[in-house]
Amino acid sequence: MIEVYAFATPNSVKVLIALEEMGLPYELKPVNVRKGEQKNDLFLALNPNGKVPVLVDDGFVLTESAAILVHLAEKTGKLLSQDNVSRARVFEELFFHASGVSPAFGNAGFFKRSSPEPQPIAEARFTSEAERLLGLLDAKLASQPFVAGDAFTIADIAHFGWIWRLQFAGLTLEGCPNLSRWFETVGARPSVQQALLRAEGLVESAGSAA
Amino acid sequence: MIEVYAFATPNSVKVLIALEEMGLPYELKPVNVRKGEQKNDLFLALNPNGKVPVLVDDGFVLTESAAILVHLAEKTGKLLSQDNVSRARVFEELFFHASGVSPAFGNAGFFKRSSPEPQPIAEARFTSEAERLLGLLDAKLASQPFVAGDAFTIADIAHFGWIWRLQFAGLTLEGCPNLSRWFETVGARPSVQQALLRAEGLVESAGSAA
Repeated sequence: MIEVYAFATPNSVKVLIALEEMGLPYELKPVNVRKGEQKNDLFLALNPNGKVPVLVDDGFVLTESAAILVHLAEKTGKLLSQDNVSRARVFEELFFHASGVSPAFGNAGFFKRSSPEPQPIAEARFTSEAERLLGLLDAKLASQPFVAGDAFTIADIAHFGWIWRLQFAGLTLEGCPNLSRWFETVGARPSVQQALLRAEGLVESAGSAA
Repeated sequence: MIEVYAFATPNSVKVLIALEEMGLPYELKPVNVRKGEQKNDLFLALNPNGKVPVLVDDGFVLTESAAILVHLAEKTGKLLSQDNVSRARVFEELFFHASGVSPAFGNAGFFKRSSPEPQPIAEARFTSEAERLLGLLDAKLASQPFVAGDAFTIADIAHFGWIWRLQFAGLTLEGCPNLSRWFETVGARPSVQQALLRAEGLVESAGSAA
């Protein structure tokens, strides 16, 4: 029995996409981050870091979206090769995403939208970093169909989460033809469509309950 | 034959510590980041992202320090359990470090030291986030000796890199007794001492050659 505490966020959708790809049934537990529910005591008991998503797999509680992707891939034997070199490329992209793309996008969005006062140097720093990273991904995808090589892997799922929400960070895919092609290809997968539907359903039900 | 392109940086020392722990011989290739050598064309051909460390393992080029740690752990069978639960805890910490600790520390340091003009909201944002994360680590280490549980793993190596350099971010371990105890324990390991010596040697030889 798999439960996922999630909302329609870049990191939450990664887990939903992986579960759909792997054909694992799961129950969604909505955590309305727009109302700050991820900072409630009940949720903090599950994840003291106060962040979605959280996976509960037969009682085993796991946080950090990319760690959840690795756990699900190893549990099912899907979307993460056993070959040393292919595998290392997947981890390289997962950590490039976690340490580079994710904080750059998140902070670009924060300083554009949520900072109580303008912080122009900070805004420019994270926006230019996010654009630089989009350029690196685009260059990589000029010579290979997926971010870690020839096969669709959990690394594509990780990157998809934030590229799907790049408008939050005030970014576009203009000037990134290879990344645009990749985004369309990945976005057209039935698993991705189903995951996004379920994630967006969380927002609708939260709205109607409010 | 293993080569490591590195300098005395938080991310570089992680790789050196792992290699020393695992007893793998390696050749250090200094990249003086104080002179911006990581943005030179020769280095960008190795890592288009312009960051140290880079591992070259019999011609296989790998970037992202945590991906290198996973690669070395899987290559040697050391410091990363085969047990599903223990393993998931290691990945959880590796990604908590990569997506949380590392960008918070790096940005706290930037806005304290390197921003061309003060950005008080940005400085406070990253400093308070870094302090919050130190508190989470300290709480975790109250009930277990190492960050991912009972055993020393590559996750301890990842966290050690930035805790070793926390002064850069203007932070201290005051009020973190468990994290302080962990830092002393890990820092006393012969492998760690040897790795730090070799990393600091890179700065000295760069200085004398300048």
